[in-house]
Amino acid sequence: MAKPIVKVGINGYGVIGKRCADAISLQDDMKLVGISDIASDYRIKLAQLKGYPIYCSLPEKEEEMRKAGIEVVGTLEDMLKEVDVIIDCTPKGIGAKNKALYDKHGVKSIFQGGESHELTGLSFVAQCNYKEALGKDSLRVVSCNTTGICRVIGSLHKKLGIKMARVMLARRACDPWESHKGGVINTFYPEAHIPSHQGPDAQTVIPDLPIITIAAKGPYNISHMHFAFVEFREKVDRETVISVLDEAPRIIFVNAGDGIEALNSVLEICRDLQRPRADLWEVAVWKDILALNEDCTEAYLIYQVHNEAIVIPENIDAIRALTELETDPMKSIEKTDKSLGIVKKLL
Amino acid sequence: MAKPIVKVGINGYGVIGKRCADAISLQDDMKLVGISDIASDYRIKLAQLKGYPIYCSLPEKEEEMRKAGIEVVGTLEDMLKEVDVIIDCTPKGIGAKNKALYDKHGVKSIFQGGESHELTGLSFVAQCNYKEALGKDSLRVVSCNTTGICRVIGSLHKKLGIKMARVMLARRACDPWESHKGGVINTFYPEAHIPSHQGPDAQTVIPDLPIITIAAKGPYNISHMHFAFVEFREKVDRETVISVLDEAPRIIFVNAGDGIEALNSVLEICRDLQRPRADLWEVAVWKDILALNEDCTEAYLIYQVHNEAIVIPENIDAIRALTELETDPMKSIEKTDKSLGIVKKLL
Amino acid sequence: MAKPIVKVGINGYGVIGKRCADAISLQDDMKLVGISDIASDYRIKLAQLKGYPIYCSLPEKEEEMRKAGIEVVGTLEDMLKEVDVIIDCTPKGIGAKNKALYDKHGVKSIFQGGESHELTGLSFVAQCNYKEALGKDSLRVVSCNTTGICRVIGSLHKKLGIKMARVMLARRACDPWESHKGGVINTFYPEAHIPSHQGPDAQTVIPDLPIITIAAKGPYNISHMHFAFVEFREKVDRETVISVLDEAPRIIFVNAGDGIEALNSVLEICRDLQRPRADLWEVAVWKDILALNEDCTEAYLIYQVHNEAIVIPENIDAIRALTELETDPMKSIEKTDKSLGIVKKLL
Amino acid sequence: MAKPIVKVGINGYGVIGKRCADAISLQDDMKLVGISDIASDYRIKLAQLKGYPIYCSLPEKEEEMRKAGIEVVGTLEDMLKEVDVIIDCTPKGIGAKNKALYDKHGVKSIFQGGESHELTGLSFVAQCNYKEALGKDSLRVVSCNTTGICRVIGSLHKKLGIKMARVMLARRACDPWESHKGGVINTFYPEAHIPSHQGPDAQTVIPDLPIITIAAKGPYNISHMHFAFVEFREKVDRETVISVLDEAPRIIFVNAGDGIEALNSVLEICRDLQRPRADLWEVAVWKDILALNEDCTEAYLIYQVHNEAIVIPENIDAIRALTELETDPMKSIEKTDKSLGIVKKLL
Repeated sequence: MAKPIVKVGINGYGVIGKRCADAISLQDDMKLVGISDIASDYRIKLAQLKGYPIYCSLPEKEEEMRKAGIEVVGTLEDMLKEVDVIIDCTPKGIGAKNKALYDKHGVKSIFQGGESHELTGLSFVAQCNYKEALGKDSLRVVSCNTTGICRVIGSLHKKLGIKMARVMLARRACDPWESHKGGVINTFYPEAHIPSHQGPDAQTVIPDLPIITIAAKGPYNISHMHFAFVEFREKVDRETVISVLDEAPRIIFVNAGDGIEALNSVLEICRDLQRPRADLWEVAVWKDILALNEDCTEAYLIYQVHNEAIVIPENIDAIRALTELETDPMKSIEKTDKSLGIVKKLL
Repeated sequence: MAKPIVKVGINGYGVIGKRCADAISLQDDMKLVGISDIASDYRIKLAQLKGYPIYCSLPEKEEEMRKAGIEVVGTLEDMLKEVDVIIDCTPKGIGAKNKALYDKHGVKSIFQGGESHELTGLSFVAQCNYKEALGKDSLRVVSCNTTGICRVIGSLHKKLGIKMARVMLARRACDPWESHKGGVINTFYPEAHIPSHQGPDAQTVIPDLPIITIAAKGPYNISHMHFAFVEFREKVDRETVISVLDEAPRIIFVNAGDGIEALNSVLEICRDLQRPRADLWEVAVWKDILALNEDCTEAYLIYQVHNEAIVIPENIDAIRALTELETDPMKSIEKTDKSLGIVKKLL
Repeated sequence: MAKPIVKVGINGYGVIGKRCADAISLQDDMKLVGISDIASDYRIKLAQLKGYPIYCSLPEKEEEMRKAGIEVVGTLEDMLKEVDVIIDCTPKGIGAKNKALYDKHGVKSIFQGGESHELTGLSFVAQCNYKEALGKDSLRVVSCNTTGICRVIGSLHKKLGIKMARVMLARRACDPWESHKGGVINTFYPEAHIPSHQGPDAQTVIPDLPIITIAAKGPYNISHMHFAFVEFREKVDRETVISVLDEAPRIIFVNAGDGIEALNSVLEICRDLQRPRADLWEVAVWKDILALNEDCTEAYLIYQVHNEAIVIPENIDAIRALTELETDPMKSIEKTDKSLGIVKKLL
Repeated sequence: MAKPIVKVGINGYGVIGKRCADAISLQDDMKLVGISDIASDYRIKLAQLKGYPIYCSLPEKEEEMRKAGIEVVGTLEDMLKEVDVIIDCTPKGIGAKNKALYDKHGVKSIFQGGESHELTGLSFVAQCNYKEALGKDSLRVVSCNTTGICRVIGSLHKKLGIKMARVMLARRACDPWESHKGGVINTFYPEAHIPSHQGPDAQTVIPDLPIITIAAKGPYNISHMHFAFVEFREKVDRETVISVLDEAPRIIFVNAGDGIEALNSVLEICRDLQRPRADLWEVAVWKDILALNEDCTEAYLIYQVHNEAIVIPENIDAIRALTELETDPMKSIEKTDKSLGIVKKLL
């Protein structure tokens, strides 16, 4: 029997959209029909250079795109006629407006963490709730920080039982591509509300997760760093905590003692390993920094969440879950990880 | 009866030393005998411009200083013969080597947070343990971060009883004057050991304080920001938490809702208020960000610690305590605060 | 005969407006009638704290301001009825819209460098063209960078005759107070047009100045740095170049050999000197870096322009020129400089 | 006849060394014998992961390396016995000390720009003086900034005749991998000597190049930006200037009008193109910013020099020149460019 191929379109070719496009191109059970956007600059020209068919998300932008030398093959609606699944990677809030259009075309839709949980009623992290997504029409891949929390804190909770996780998130202020326009200089800028949205957001994926988050952002653009005080329901030991993380997917360990001391160190390794865009899809946990209190009731963790890359494998798995291409979560995760080069050991 | 005047010398005219010199000059019960250093650059020339007598800490540096146009009035030992108290503001670790010399001259000595607790056996924060220092020969004013913790978390512990304080410290990477040489760029850099030293260090001041700290530093130079998850022994309410902080010395409130949103906002106010060097001697706590959990057993706080300035009033109080110029802690604190312009309400 | 007092109002209480308010308050021949703005946050509350009467620039904002606890004494038009001169410090482009209102009230008006030369037909730098402004109704104080160029390159041109000045401007990306929202991270961002506007803008003050400028901005907020390749019409010598700058107002020398090595070093000195807001009203030229080519036909200069502060004395002089309070440029400059603490030698 | 294979070793596996190792591995006329270093951290472990034989540069470091799990196959001297050419990528100044050892083993040696011209007497940029290097024993590949100048300003000089090039270099403060330890924060830091060393250094490659450079560094780590005021001996036109650069090797054009506005934009494209480590081997010249004065005697250029990558192709060509693997400069350049993926048009 011929292997089924799911046809996928991407609306919004930005930080997440372009990575999803490349990732889909690496899957043997998916086909990228095209990408849709409204920009006319180098970003879309790069999509063209890669050979991705380009659609126009707003009719009024089509002429501008053509004038810039972009070969527009159709409108977003044209693309929707050709796809089984659409990944919406438009800026925060735009996705919500697009959903009716996707529904009208009977296309399954995947949204990103900028949209609300309520939009689809299903917030997704592959290793947490893949099965809930099987056959659904729509879901939301949660944001980078929430994904990181679900992977790390969620794994510990599932296996060891958390009484309360208190997590401080030191966020990057903007992404590299936009850093000449959207940054922060020489200050640290807290979110003015506690809990910050990431804690409650993680509970849309793992409802019984006891967590409180505080967030702030600083003048850097290369990824986030989380500082977690994890209080367990019962005594644990360091080896167990480590083995739980070691067995969970998409989490790797790094050691400060190996000279891997800060956010930039891990990304330098991703560069050295010739990873595409120097991306870190995994959460990197500092193993030799991980410590417990004397009573062995709390663990303290520092980990890195690469906001540009971490949700890419989740989007791929989400396609498989919605379309039931694969019903076994771990089989999908393994297939995605193999195709992208996601590992359990960086070096 | 004539008011006694304590004669003070300062060894090390850097970030802390120069501020201590100015602060002592504002006291009516102290006299600055001079400052001692080994540098020959603009820093010492500014001391000369202010009229501070300049001594040389190392004989072999004297000629270099003179050649640079600095009028050296004597050696460090000459200065020690003239003073009752020496404030050691030399770089970390040098103070420990200097103590024997101070002792030899029978001079009371104050060290900074870079030195170990063991050097003097007494780690000092005025509002916590002033009375312990009365008549002692020597003490250590704890570091900026530890001072901030003792003021804020210490006050809450004393009045409300803390079960466990979990604090993440987002540190500035270096001071403004040295920022062309000593910085960090586009990354976040955790301390590789948990607990970071500030938690145990706070316990040298408040032995029964239950606290765990995690620290990291970022690419900014204007002050530190702490993120505290404070778990109380019993239920509390928001008003009580606020009133405890409001009644404690050297803590002020700011509100994000007033546009005071980040580290730079508070320091812009210090500039606007024409404070010397735009210094913030107080800990600034964000009042409208302060929140409690539903059970009212935990409070979450964000506060700013201005590393350049926060320990200055502590050094002044330390002089009064060691020399018994004043035996009532609050009288010394009030006198110091009035002289420097320390307030309970910034605007 | 009683000394005349000029009544001045300020519209726009931002980076420039607040400094102008403080500077006017220091003059014995001027009176600050009030400041007008539309904001309700800490910035305006600080104006209130300083005792400045507060007017509201837009009627629809008055209620919001009152609700925030600001005592609004009237509208902008009310203030205009009371003043002889208005300094418009509103954001770029707003000033142009305000001019008709000022004219209607018969109030002389001073605009900032964000407005176009054409708005008033007179672009002003005190030491260059004070006399042109005598008795005029309106003028524009040019921007920080243009003021810096006019002082330094203008002085050299006037005394020595420049064949061509080629200047690269490394600009700060935003001001400290707004640095949590408006910055640049880890990149250098050139202006996409050569010449950048500052060269032609300097020619609105000094029409025969041969100059070309290229500009870019970087991830810092503390001031601008200019790099000038100045080609003279005839041979010069280093001493002459230095003496020309030494004799010009509002230019000071600093030396890298004194440890004054970068933008932050100079501002640290301003902090140490207890200057208000650590402001540097003067242009700081690195004397020991200043060099000539072998033929002695070109000089190479590096200087610092403190964008927040440099135009403040110009605004004060502009008031005197427009109102003919003082007809002698140097007398006004000296009076302003004495009142603010502007020097010819920093240390 | 069998194609000759040159055996190459690399001493110093840092920013340049690791890129040279990868680049050599891509050549069909070279073989990487191994790399030599003294470090024991993740950097060397990555070399091991790539399968590069690892030698130890200092005998006293060998045990430490072995303990860290690095399989050391021999000493630096062992490696020198096996190679025809050594590329010295050790830190500035160490190379000079190593030369006698290389000479003793009769190995041809290539040094980097941190070493002085005098060390080898031959400073090399492939497109400028390849033929001078044919058959020599040793040469120095000049630094990143000097290489950028030689490519861009050198090409213009060769074809159009420069009267004087005045270039301001805005340098990155440190490299990404070391940015948690070696940076600059919130300031701009000029080199205290004019001319900065890059101008004279370019003259070691192109002796008759009339050039003056001024340098400063800022708080970013992703590459350098040059601002060039190029005065020609005779009138030129914009099309000619552009075509000269278009015809020169290893220079590409970018346009701000395409959204490629700053250093980060170009490197984002390198990431999107899946270039190894997001490297930019070419100099990127902003085509739509490039302007001429009215007289058409001067051109103004802004270009980007990626310090981590720009000298890598030069090192490969240097191997071919020293060993006479290829005597035609353009044939070597084309071969190198093809192997690395160096282009004349980025998108």
